[in-house]
Amino acid sequence: MKLSASGLGQQAAHEGENKCLNSELWHACAGPLVCLPTVGSRVVYFPQGHSEQVAATTNKEVDAHIPNYPNLPPQLICQLHNITMHADVETDEVYAQMTLQPLTPEEQKDTFLPMELGIPSKQPTNYFCKTLTASDTSTHGGFSVPRRAAEKVFPPLDFSQQPPVQELIARDLHDVEWKFRHIFRGQPKRHLLTTGWSVFVSAKRLVAGDSVLFIWNENNQLLLGIRRATRPQTVMPSSVLSSDSMHIGLLAAAAHAAATNSCFTVFYNPRWASPSEFVIPLSKYIKAVFHTRVSVGMRFRMLFETEESSVRRYMGTITSISDLDPARWPNSRWRSVKVGWDESTAGERQPRVSLWEIEPLTTFPMYPSLFPLGLKRPWHPGSSSLHGIVPY
Amino acid sequence: MKLSASGLGQQAAHEGENKCLNSELWHACAGPLVCLPTVGSRVVYFPQGHSEQVAATTNKEVDAHIPNYPNLPPQLICQLHNITMHADVETDEVYAQMTLQPLTPEEQKDTFLPMELGIPSKQPTNYFCKTLTASDTSTHGGFSVPRRAAEKVFPPLDFSQQPPVQELIARDLHDVEWKFRHIFRGQPKRHLLTTGWSVFVSAKRLVAGDSVLFIWNENNQLLLGIRRATRPQTVMPSSVLSSDSMHIGLLAAAAHAAATNSCFTVFYNPRWASPSEFVIPLSKYIKAVFHTRVSVGMRFRMLFETEESSVRRYMGTITSISDLDPARWPNSRWRSVKVGWDESTAGERQPRVSLWEIEPLTTFPMYPSLFPLGLKRPWHPGSSSLHGIVPY
Repeated sequence: MKLSASGLGQQAAHEGENKCLNSELWHACAGPLVCLPTVGSRVVYFPQGHSEQVAATTNKEVDAHIPNYPNLPPQLICQLHNITMHADVETDEVYAQMTLQPLTPEEQKDTFLPMELGIPSKQPTNYFCKTLTASDTSTHGGFSVPRRAAEKVFPPLDFSQQPPVQELIARDLHDVEWKFRHIFRGQPKRHLLTTGWSVFVSAKRLVAGDSVLFIWNENNQLLLGIRRATRPQTVMPSSVLSSDSMHIGLLAAAAHAAATNSCFTVFYNPRWASPSEFVIPLSKYIKAVFHTRVSVGMRFRMLFETEESSVRRYMGTITSISDLDPARWPNSRWRSVKVGWDESTAGERQPRVSLWEIEPLTTFPMYPSLFPLGLKRPWHPGSSSLHGIVPY
Repeated sequence: MKLSASGLGQQAAHEGENKCLNSELWHACAGPLVCLPTVGSRVVYFPQGHSEQVAATTNKEVDAHIPNYPNLPPQLICQLHNITMHADVETDEVYAQMTLQPLTPEEQKDTFLPMELGIPSKQPTNYFCKTLTASDTSTHGGFSVPRRAAEKVFPPLDFSQQPPVQELIARDLHDVEWKFRHIFRGQPKRHLLTTGWSVFVSAKRLVAGDSVLFIWNENNQLLLGIRRATRPQTVMPSSVLSSDSMHIGLLAAAAHAAATNSCFTVFYNPRWASPSEFVIPLSKYIKAVFHTRVSVGMRFRMLFETEESSVRRYMGTITSISDLDPARWPNSRWRSVKVGWDESTAGERQPRVSLWEIEPLTTFPMYPSLFPLGLKRPWHPGSSSLHGIVPY
């Protein structure tokens, strides 16, 4: 391995901004379904998924002029050396920076693959998140906080005062302090943030539909984060690099890292239009691809985030299993499952999903779990490549 | 050539935003030294210069892990198929999008290269540009406009009123209308923009040191643009793609285009930290590299933009001529001239420049100009490659 710890640190210091971003705040902003893989574990990186994310930001699909990288497999097994949580300086949108190192062919073949399922990321509990209304974002208004949310998260007001009022201090993702006057007034009585609120709204350029969330950290500080409404039509075109060059860049960088077993860096933006994770724990991949049988006609469940950032299950049926892009990415597991959704309102849900995203409702017995798994038999059926075709 | 006009148009429509950006406004914002090459002409593209610009935005130098692209020459002769002027949606900073197509080896060899020097870009005349003071950007202040500038560019006030006052309407780079109250008052009397000004300052997030300029278009509309102070320390890290992947992307995209003679797209940001143009007219390149003799010890002049966006000449001496990066880019003309500057305050000026940026003070007689130039002799001295070494 060519990795040196100091080299990695330098890269993180250059590209990172908020090294100590609170993990719970980050997860609260990222949403309830986001689960980051554990540092030091093995992960599977999907260049197709990464491409989807870049296409979502540049608002432009990959076109036919992109060269092929025959040595870059559709799923690349890597060691996850580092992961840091960040928030965009301009938009406050959260993202994660991961440093990946492709395994050598030797490592890929001979390794034990313990059935580690990873430690689930610490999801926040004591917080509230409210989607802003037009009144919340109007210049002459304040922020109306639902009573239960205010009582759960804000420090208690002194109700012997008339009206009950206090100053709230909350730190944003960049550790900048914001002050709000918190008052309980009106007919009927409501919790309101008044003075300080409209400055915050205009500084952060919030619009109705965006969400604001408040959460406590372990040092008893109130933190606040932002989730912008996904706005697929208004993604900024970058003025740094053309979208084609960006696509080529991500593929060439991964191909180069795979060829030289060197580290490469990816950014994962959980809130963007195409939120499917493209770096997933190897154990999750193995479980879904090798230890779960799926077939056409099978029923499944899948979790989605709702408007109000809670979680809902949707049901569907597998309609076919095939390559998403047989020409460019043959034998890829990325979105290899075509599905039909039960509800007719399921228009915005993907017609193609990946095996590890769904929970089939009829499963065959799994291999005994909790074992160091010599993967030679199930993994390479007559093939020497980790990335070869394995029958479903 | 694989170029199809419709394909190009689609690309521009996807990535572009302001298709009809006023050329004079764009140039006023870009600065007095920026000269875009002419559409349809031949240009030389320098991947090293492009890398410098990407490094300036990502605030990170190219590191040693970037793969080599042996088929990508340090200077790539291209047809400039399209050029469009834009302004960044978030920052208003101007940039140009260019569509380049590398010439085939056949075209490079057999072509006539007319000594076209291009039509100089239309530089604006009737405009003013003011660098904002702390008072101009304070929340309770207005914008103080120098008397001569106001009289030159703003519509005349009616001085029979007391105080003389009018409403100014100006459109920004995104065609958004801004209204300002223009008043002539105070002791001594000054031109001020009052109501509307601080909304503009906070919407554009202007700080002292940034500049604002006003200019008329051909339809008799007042336009306004922004030049941000160059802030090399605060460049935003992108959360789309790691800087390494961006570097790899620009190199791989150019290498792929060169190998397949297909089009590629670059963005040129004239106001960024490293403002050297990396796409220059072929004629300018030929003149500087083949028809001008330079040698160590020679004196030269070079133009620079001053703080107040006028132009100043600086003098220097050539101290050596050598490759900037002999390992990665042997025989490159990019910044091949090491120089010493006369003035000790020249700290921020580059210690290395390219031949076409300087004006040597002793020149030998040029080849007769105004000829279709069969370049075989001066261009390929004993070499079949356009990109080979040519003695200075």
